[in-house]
Amino acid sequence: MIRIGYEPLLVYAEQVLEQIGYPNDKAGITAWALVEADARGVPSHGLQRVVDYEKYIKEGIFRPEAPTETVYQTGISSVLDGNSGIGMDIALKAMGICLEKASDVGAGFCSVRNSNHFGMAGLWAEMAPPKNCVGIAMTNTEPFAIVTHGCERLLGTNPIAVAFPATRDGCFLLDMATTTVPHGKIETYARRNLEMPLGWAVDDKGADTTDSAAMSELFKSTLPFGGQLMLGGRGETLGGHKGYGLGLMVELFCSALSGGTWSRHVFSSGSGGAITHFFAAFRLDLFGEPSKISELVQSILDEIRASEKAQGQDRIFVHGEKERMRREESLEKGVFLDEKTWGEMVLYSQRFKLDLPDTSEKK
Amino acid sequence: MIRIGYEPLLVYAEQVLEQIGYPNDKAGITAWALVEADARGVPSHGLQRVVDYEKYIKEGIFRPEAPTETVYQTGISSVLDGNSGIGMDIALKAMGICLEKASDVGAGFCSVRNSNHFGMAGLWAEMAPPKNCVGIAMTNTEPFAIVTHGCERLLGTNPIAVAFPATRDGCFLLDMATTTVPHGKIETYARRNLEMPLGWAVDDKGADTTDSAAMSELFKSTLPFGGQLMLGGRGETLGGHKGYGLGLMVELFCSALSGGTWSRHVFSSGSGGAITHFFAAFRLDLFGEPSKISELVQSILDEIRASEKAQGQDRIFVHGEKERMRREESLEKGVFLDEKTWGEMVLYSQRFKLDLPDTSEKK
Repeated sequence: MIRIGYEPLLVYAEQVLEQIGYPNDKAGITAWALVEADARGVPSHGLQRVVDYEKYIKEGIFRPEAPTETVYQTGISSVLDGNSGIGMDIALKAMGICLEKASDVGAGFCSVRNSNHFGMAGLWAEMAPPKNCVGIAMTNTEPFAIVTHGCERLLGTNPIAVAFPATRDGCFLLDMATTTVPHGKIETYARRNLEMPLGWAVDDKGADTTDSAAMSELFKSTLPFGGQLMLGGRGETLGGHKGYGLGLMVELFCSALSGGTWSRHVFSSGSGGAITHFFAAFRLDLFGEPSKISELVQSILDEIRASEKAQGQDRIFVHGEKERMRREESLEKGVFLDEKTWGEMVLYSQRFKLDLPDTSEKK
Repeated sequence: MIRIGYEPLLVYAEQVLEQIGYPNDKAGITAWALVEADARGVPSHGLQRVVDYEKYIKEGIFRPEAPTETVYQTGISSVLDGNSGIGMDIALKAMGICLEKASDVGAGFCSVRNSNHFGMAGLWAEMAPPKNCVGIAMTNTEPFAIVTHGCERLLGTNPIAVAFPATRDGCFLLDMATTTVPHGKIETYARRNLEMPLGWAVDDKGADTTDSAAMSELFKSTLPFGGQLMLGGRGETLGGHKGYGLGLMVELFCSALSGGTWSRHVFSSGSGGAITHFFAAFRLDLFGEPSKISELVQSILDEIRASEKAQGQDRIFVHGEKERMRREESLEKGVFLDEKTWGEMVLYSQRFKLDLPDTSEKK
């Protein structure tokens, strides 16, 4: 197990991305997004993605030089076409547009078509609170999930992120896949030969399954049956139709409002990943004095944390708090990478004759 | 089991509400919202509420004559104080403000404090699609739910409704409590002496329970422990922290942005119900030609419905579809009321010397 200083890792990741074809500015924002994910304890959106990104560039799915075009706009909104460019670069631009328009007219909306993986949705939503805005980011993904009473993979894990300013915490940051678990969690279970809990996925026959390896294979096959379950699980008893509704809502925000491709056809349209996103920001002062509102947010979070704990629990978390704690630890002790991801970084250093960053701690 | 013609039932409900203290216009919108819920097969938000509403008026929680005040506004937003008035009337005004501002500047936001029960959230969100807008409505409620790792009832069922225009369907309408089930469902199970499925609630000791009667009693007690589970259930394995996050997000939109009371203290502040809401609308033409966008929405809904069904299922629904079907049936055959609710309506006719509407069908 390896820890690497945040700054040296960031510099190294940027060098690797430049070597595999990223222009300097796009390498910078992508390296930041990936290292931030690792630093926050979300490795599924971290540097382990670089190997796939290189593959996507070779396959023409990622086009690092592609310009992001504004195809439609009003004073309060923009529609961008990413032209199969780099998702993080596109997301940064899109949220920047939302914040600029919010600064001008109170709110800003931006939908995006023909983009690619943009990393953790929360990174873009949380650009808003420092500007005294509420921020929203959503994306569709490859189709991984079945819908209530269906058996084909139609929806992505379709995450939604919402960030509210809070005085002492900085922000409340909800960042969640609308499936029971993020896709990467099943991949992680498969890599580690672990059985999944019941309720994460059904197989190609529609049966509940705990077999992470078989599901991982299924996701790579062209057989369209079987997939992840939406939040609330199978059927309607525990609200599976609600998770399906949330995922479909994200789909409409992203793909319908951008005139883009919906999850079912993402990565199969023949021209790039064709991922779609949606971003929004609005100013707190639409509703009163921002400092009072963010203090009210803070007081609600504080009251929840201070409330009575369930038996066997000694702490109640609010959303974004665990990731903030892990990030602080990573800044202090170094960013944790697993052996496999570190191994990939070592290979890149050999291939491209790059100096590896010091590993500040091994245990 | 009784069915009553939609129009006669609406007229009758309005007369009853006027008798229990509603001014004419507020009786009209409230009767409409309640009869619509019954017509759509959502009796928990229908006429069975009238008895409680009368009680709330007597207790001073509902103040039917209270004016709705605009306490803060910008060109794109308003904050309303309901002064403990009638929720439906306040919601209608608030969504009207959003749509008017959206018509002017592209989007409109409205937060509300010191309101009361506003019926089905979906009724207000779906005002937007006929104006070629996306509509959003949220509300907090009395505290019924515990949070992940907590054991006190802190959050309401905090529903969220989102309506997107769709060409042939009229709209996609997601309308969901962020708890596993709406609160009324547990009450219904208790009235019918049914055991709940595991995963809806935990008791005052924090144990899983199927005892709907005991939970129903617990909700009426002042003991703050035990309550409904958020979407995703207990713990984090199946995403309970996500349902908690969604409920908390709704809480922040409603109570923090209105400067109002959060669920934990709703109905216990000593002055009215103190419920808070949030509404928003934005125009489709912020993103392109509205007819093209609503056709894209429609085509996604159609593709989902036409996809392969799970074994034993012959139909996949999209959100709002079941309620639309039931509403059509109610318009044709009459609105269904259960014996208890009809009995309450009969008592009102005796007390207030009102002619009962014809029951068009009994079976």
